[in-house]
Amino acid sequence: MPSSKRLILVCNDDGIFSPGISALADVAKKFGDVAVVAPDRQQSAVGHSITIMDPLRTTSFELKNGLVGQAVNGTPADCVKLAHDQILDRKPDLVLSGINHGSNAGINIIYSGTVSAATEGTILGYPSIAVSCTEFDEKADLQGCMEAAERAIQFVFENGLPKGITLNVNAPPGPLKGLKWTRQAESRYTDEYEARVDPHKRPYYWITGRLEILDQSEDLDINVLREGLGSISPIQYDLTAYSVFSALSSMEI
Amino acid sequence: MPSSKRLILVCNDDGIFSPGISALADVAKKFGDVAVVAPDRQQSAVGHSITIMDPLRTTSFELKNGLVGQAVNGTPADCVKLAHDQILDRKPDLVLSGINHGSNAGINIIYSGTVSAATEGTILGYPSIAVSCTEFDEKADLQGCMEAAERAIQFVFENGLPKGITLNVNAPPGPLKGLKWTRQAESRYTDEYEARVDPHKRPYYWITGRLEILDQSEDLDINVLREGLGSISPIQYDLTAYSVFSALSSMEI
Repeated sequence: MPSSKRLILVCNDDGIFSPGISALADVAKKFGDVAVVAPDRQQSAVGHSITIMDPLRTTSFELKNGLVGQAVNGTPADCVKLAHDQILDRKPDLVLSGINHGSNAGINIIYSGTVSAATEGTILGYPSIAVSCTEFDEKADLQGCMEAAERAIQFVFENGLPKGITLNVNAPPGPLKGLKWTRQAESRYTDEYEARVDPHKRPYYWITGRLEILDQSEDLDINVLREGLGSISPIQYDLTAYSVFSALSSMEI
Repeated sequence: MPSSKRLILVCNDDGIFSPGISALADVAKKFGDVAVVAPDRQQSAVGHSITIMDPLRTTSFELKNGLVGQAVNGTPADCVKLAHDQILDRKPDLVLSGINHGSNAGINIIYSGTVSAATEGTILGYPSIAVSCTEFDEKADLQGCMEAAERAIQFVFENGLPKGITLNVNAPPGPLKGLKWTRQAESRYTDEYEARVDPHKRPYYWITGRLEILDQSEDLDINVLREGLGSISPIQYDLTAYSVFSALSSMEI
């Protein structure tokens, strides 16, 4: 008999062995049945990459919390697409991505595999939420992030989400001191590469860089996180620059 | 003596051997000095992926049109970042990406390495333009795309571009019948995967899918391209959903 409970798809970009995905699946279990479909390895900073030139395969695996999921040899966006089209036996009521080990605020949203998995859920028509912890250490205390995730899920099930909108949630490690609605902070990396020489005297470059915040408004995700609070930003995949569209479109091209 | 001519950085996602990048470099030469920094292999659908876990290296190479460039063992966004931070000896006046062999309109913008290279240029503060041909065949006639690129470049050098805005240009193969300002079409893929069985009886999935247009407005990129015209869309990397932000941010979370 088909389950009448809600189905929640959980994905991430740190891969199936990450503590963050177990923590997010634990939160999801409070709201319904949980299906975990996630990359079989670390896929950070893959952005909205999808696999076109190679076949995808799935393998069953057991999460740190005992839940059985499907591992995919692909990107976070691949996982959500494949779950939707081939793996799940019914449509999910919600797509969750995370908990990422590392912040996805400001310009990092653009590079984030975690956010892209949630965005892919939105593209496919499902309410979707990305959740990230500002601390990279996999041993970080995720209690506050789990609480922020639970509040975001509760919000979505009570109010729905406007079409085309994804929620992007970040929180610091430790207990949650508050959760604020935020915008993506204008920010960029500077001094991005370290030039090095390998043991065979050949040059190479390794990405490093320092995040520069270009706007100090109080409702920006990075600034709220720096105050020690959690941030929740509505984001969209329609990249059209509506603020300049009518001005530009009246000009000759 | 440093050159007083404009410097134009040219990148792509099809890699250095693509005819499209030679064609775009040919257009760029009309406006100043040209520096080509591009992936050493095909990088389609990598989205805004960047390389974090591995070192990047560069190699000199000669394009199909005789220009010498730098090949990078990374993604399109890596190429623009590395060019900006390490390779170029002066700041570029413009970043171009393409000409991609395949349309980057509608939802394809999200997955596009071509668009991401241009977006990365915008993030770094340079006027940036992505150019794509709707035809996948590498032998396609790129004359119309080159003309559309030239008109977009001319526009940018005459009028500048608002901060944070990238231009995303698409055109059909053959002569250019017109160029229209457009918005990103609401669209998505359906029936995305073909389930197959390998010679060892193991299942695998290959991405395929059919693009579904969800809005028929005349100013949408895909619809303009289907009329046989070129499209030019202003896009942005600030993903904040401003249309719903004030409504959401007044709600309790």
